[in-house]
Amino acid sequence: MKKAIFPVGISVLLFSTSVFAKDFVLTDVATNLELASWQITSEELGLTDTSAFTVTKKTLHGGRQEGSTLITVETKDLQVSLIPTRGMDIFAIKSGDLRYGWTSPVDEIVNPAYIALDMRNGLGWLDGFNEMMVRCGFEWTGHPGREKDRLMSLHGRAGNTPASKVVVSVDDAPPHTIHVRGLLKENTFKFSALETWTDMSVTPGVKTVKIHDELTNNSDYDRDYQIIYHSNFGAPLLEEGATVAAPVKEISPFNDYAKKGLTDWRTYPGPTRGYDEMVFNLVPYADKDGRTVAMLRDKAADRGIAVRFDTRQLPVLTLWKNTDTLKQGYVTGIEPGTSYAYPRQIERTQGRVRTLAPNGTQSFDLEYQLLTSPGEIDAVEREILSIASGRPTKIIRQPIAKE
Amino acid sequence: MKKAIFPVGISVLLFSTSVFAKDFVLTDVATNLELASWQITSEELGLTDTSAFTVTKKTLHGGRQEGSTLITVETKDLQVSLIPTRGMDIFAIKSGDLRYGWTSPVDEIVNPAYIALDMRNGLGWLDGFNEMMVRCGFEWTGHPGREKDRLMSLHGRAGNTPASKVVVSVDDAPPHTIHVRGLLKENTFKFSALETWTDMSVTPGVKTVKIHDELTNNSDYDRDYQIIYHSNFGAPLLEEGATVAAPVKEISPFNDYAKKGLTDWRTYPGPTRGYDEMVFNLVPYADKDGRTVAMLRDKAADRGIAVRFDTRQLPVLTLWKNTDTLKQGYVTGIEPGTSYAYPRQIERTQGRVRTLAPNGTQSFDLEYQLLTSPGEIDAVEREILSIASGRPTKIIRQPIAKE
Amino acid sequence: MKKAIFPVGISVLLFSTSVFAKDFVLTDVATNLELASWQITSEELGLTDTSAFTVTKKTLHGGRQEGSTLITVETKDLQVSLIPTRGMDIFAIKSGDLRYGWTSPVDEIVNPAYIALDMRNGLGWLDGFNEMMVRCGFEWTGHPGREKDRLMSLHGRAGNTPASKVVVSVDDAPPHTIHVRGLLKENTFKFSALETWTDMSVTPGVKTVKIHDELTNNSDYDRDYQIIYHSNFGAPLLEEGATVAAPVKEISPFNDYAKKGLTDWRTYPGPTRGYDEMVFNLVPYADKDGRTVAMLRDKAADRGIAVRFDTRQLPVLTLWKNTDTLKQGYVTGIEPGTSYAYPRQIERTQGRVRTLAPNGTQSFDLEYQLLTSPGEIDAVEREILSIASGRPTKIIRQPIAKE
Repeated sequence: MKKAIFPVGISVLLFSTSVFAKDFVLTDVATNLELASWQITSEELGLTDTSAFTVTKKTLHGGRQEGSTLITVETKDLQVSLIPTRGMDIFAIKSGDLRYGWTSPVDEIVNPAYIALDMRNGLGWLDGFNEMMVRCGFEWTGHPGREKDRLMSLHGRAGNTPASKVVVSVDDAPPHTIHVRGLLKENTFKFSALETWTDMSVTPGVKTVKIHDELTNNSDYDRDYQIIYHSNFGAPLLEEGATVAAPVKEISPFNDYAKKGLTDWRTYPGPTRGYDEMVFNLVPYADKDGRTVAMLRDKAADRGIAVRFDTRQLPVLTLWKNTDTLKQGYVTGIEPGTSYAYPRQIERTQGRVRTLAPNGTQSFDLEYQLLTSPGEIDAVEREILSIASGRPTKIIRQPIAKE
Repeated sequence: MKKAIFPVGISVLLFSTSVFAKDFVLTDVATNLELASWQITSEELGLTDTSAFTVTKKTLHGGRQEGSTLITVETKDLQVSLIPTRGMDIFAIKSGDLRYGWTSPVDEIVNPAYIALDMRNGLGWLDGFNEMMVRCGFEWTGHPGREKDRLMSLHGRAGNTPASKVVVSVDDAPPHTIHVRGLLKENTFKFSALETWTDMSVTPGVKTVKIHDELTNNSDYDRDYQIIYHSNFGAPLLEEGATVAAPVKEISPFNDYAKKGLTDWRTYPGPTRGYDEMVFNLVPYADKDGRTVAMLRDKAADRGIAVRFDTRQLPVLTLWKNTDTLKQGYVTGIEPGTSYAYPRQIERTQGRVRTLAPNGTQSFDLEYQLLTSPGEIDAVEREILSIASGRPTKIIRQPIAKE
Repeated sequence: MKKAIFPVGISVLLFSTSVFAKDFVLTDVATNLELASWQITSEELGLTDTSAFTVTKKTLHGGRQEGSTLITVETKDLQVSLIPTRGMDIFAIKSGDLRYGWTSPVDEIVNPAYIALDMRNGLGWLDGFNEMMVRCGFEWTGHPGREKDRLMSLHGRAGNTPASKVVVSVDDAPPHTIHVRGLLKENTFKFSALETWTDMSVTPGVKTVKIHDELTNNSDYDRDYQIIYHSNFGAPLLEEGATVAAPVKEISPFNDYAKKGLTDWRTYPGPTRGYDEMVFNLVPYADKDGRTVAMLRDKAADRGIAVRFDTRQLPVLTLWKNTDTLKQGYVTGIEPGTSYAYPRQIERTQGRVRTLAPNGTQSFDLEYQLLTSPGEIDAVEREILSIASGRPTKIIRQPIAKE
């Protein structure tokens, strides 16, 4: 028999006849709840049929991170931290001594209250950018642009939206998957009623972090949406000789600067002074169910990460090679999306701005699989070859758009 | 004999020889005070010669409402909530099962720390707009405009200004009127030293909410001011066949789109897909003391609201018919003001930007009278007829300005 | 023997073999620390060989100052308050009944969460300006300008940056100088990795407040920087007949309006309706070590302040005469800097934008010496004469730039 010990006053239990589900509400605007700190352990939940885990929430203090919150899920295999006050973004994943994420000059987890997205002609987002995964959307994404003289700042608002509801759930049945769900509201009178339930889940014993987001258009009108899952990895995984692999149907340079990178786009240089960023637009091949995978691995091919996604939801992939110096932010982005990173007016012209009908819902599923052995990397490489199954890569040598 | 029981440490009592006044300071920058929560009841005050009332303050949490505050005054007749952190605006009034206010896609009471008024070329105000009454002013109001290349964002700053001092007062003498007063500072070096003491009062036993604001120009120079009391009502009061009544001296369409609404501007359609908003500029007739009244009532003419104001203070009335779908925000605005909603440069050209001399003070008085019976509605209709006293309505068929 | 009594849990003690240093960390993003309130006294530290002192931190509440913090150092000679949440700026210094600082229409210590620097085409900084000393920098400073279509708002970001680490230190050895140090991070991905350790120090028994800032470029690239120490003084020190003195090598009017003030720039009028501001660009002479001093004194020449700085670090001096009415903000600025107050593109053209190499550090040293007797003022006047040592002042009669 399980013995459940809950911290007093901070848990919500939902009983039904046969299922014993555990939901812990940490934030809820409807009930005026924002727990400053909180923790639950598998031991407290009486879960003895799984490896131990802990879920912790804390509130951050000092500088521009004053009032930010951070939730950390820790299993024996990995530790993942996400930021409710910044769009439920993933700050970093750790597995053993390996950290997935990167080192930005922005070293605080910035409270959006201190961010002005319109700064520097729409680049205010850069004042807070340091996450392993940022949701860039959903009303708009990409480089700053203007429609009807209105500035759409870099990469939209979701990543600087504090979650309105946050729920930690632990599946009753083994393997007791842990979910951290958050509700993001991009609500603006006349303009937007996009709400997204984000779900980040981890199963004890599995080295994968899953994302399942559900975007709903709560308005009575068709609404455009765009999303880029800006997934970013730096050293030590990223290094000279590290490579990216994907079943690529088509690739084009984002701009003129990236043209010269077309020949060796799969390989990374070490930290390179003056490199800045080279960006490529990719269309991936997918399996019969629309699923595909991209992988970043280190030079020795013994550690890496696989980013799996559904091309019916996220048809394009931006590859962001920002292999500048370490201090400048040595990082690469593997970014599944509905759009490339061009301003919305360009994405619209080229047909990559999608529309959601009234009450329409669109799901987005991604997985970050941590690869910690040559065998795991080899398996993903074979999977990529299998998806491509000998089909060619079309190389477009000129940028498909000019900013 | 009255027996006063005060919560320890959170009340300020002012005694004078003959008057026993009760002032409760809830916020005060001068004494560094911001009570997170607070309550007082007529019982605790020992007031047995009136119907019971309660005044409550709480701090809100989660999402973009983190840190917002809300004060609720509840008598046997009505419940009114107002938002100290958002310009002392009225969030909603309830009377029995009837809620006066509306349902915006913005469903949180947003802390101004999360608002950037300049967003979308000056439409950031829409990220927080959901109140029954918003003060749109006082330095400027109306649609976004530019003077000297400076953007004046939609509807000014007052509604996104957290109050610097908040005082709840209960009259010692019956009927023990309850006042909630707040100090709004629109202070900017070189530009503005406008301070407004807002006063919202409710008398137990009376179904009226009164506003008495005093705007002071603390600068040594003449300062322009504008104000629109953006008073908004949705369903169930607003419905197909609901009507608005006022003693109208002159009416004009705000823009070309509103021209076709001139014939039936007094009647509301039900929620209408694609309606967007139709706006009319009205000049009301007033009684010999300058007082006038506008009324919104439901189709059955058994429930409504009367908005009374002083035309010497607030000479014009904007009628905002936003009878779009429910989710889009089905709402009408009855908006007494010094200005219409044109950008300030247009209002200035047409002579509706007022000036306050150094140390000058201007009062603004409004009343929201809840009408909950056919008889009450009938009385207000007769009052409106009496004010108009047979005088004609001048209909101007073309917009008086182009944005 | 000294007896040290420390508040439990809020002090960090660093012991070494021979030095007994006391560091109190009040804010630290690295350890997630932000003390809401704190105090230490010389008595608690067991320091009996000095005059008594107190250091206090508090958190401010209400209005737009909600969440601001204030640290006050009080010795028998002076009281100085500084604002960790606003760039470690000095709010005011008091000595006896004399207050150094000024009275701005902005009378709250505004939390930067409520500031939008881009407002009014880059004048949002004016919504919070009321300090005796504001750091205007470091990425840029001066009047709003644009480079690459990006708005650089008035006087940069440092003054609206909350400190990421705050440490109060008391020297173990007599005279037990008190340091308040703060870390300001102007970190933006791709753009800026400027970090500044500010140090404000006061020695019990000495009527001087010292500033020692160390700006570091943490990026791998050369970075431009600019700084103006905007030091502001109003009544009672500033009055009709008050004068400013400095060893001036060169002076020019900031704009056409200031041309007519060239003849009597050393003397101040009383509060003057319509005066607005007159600004002068000064190049000071320095002593052989590059040190110089400017002094503001009252009419009677019995009270004043000397501002000392190092011309190798801060080669130019802006004199801001804002002798408008009291309510408008009657104030003068004595502002040592690397730049004048022109927009950055002008400062760049004229060679006053400096560059810091990767990992480069630049120090800035200033002293505010409170002068409270005719003898002290006389001494500084003689010092100024000595520095000038009969060398001429070059008067440039036309503005050196047009905005």
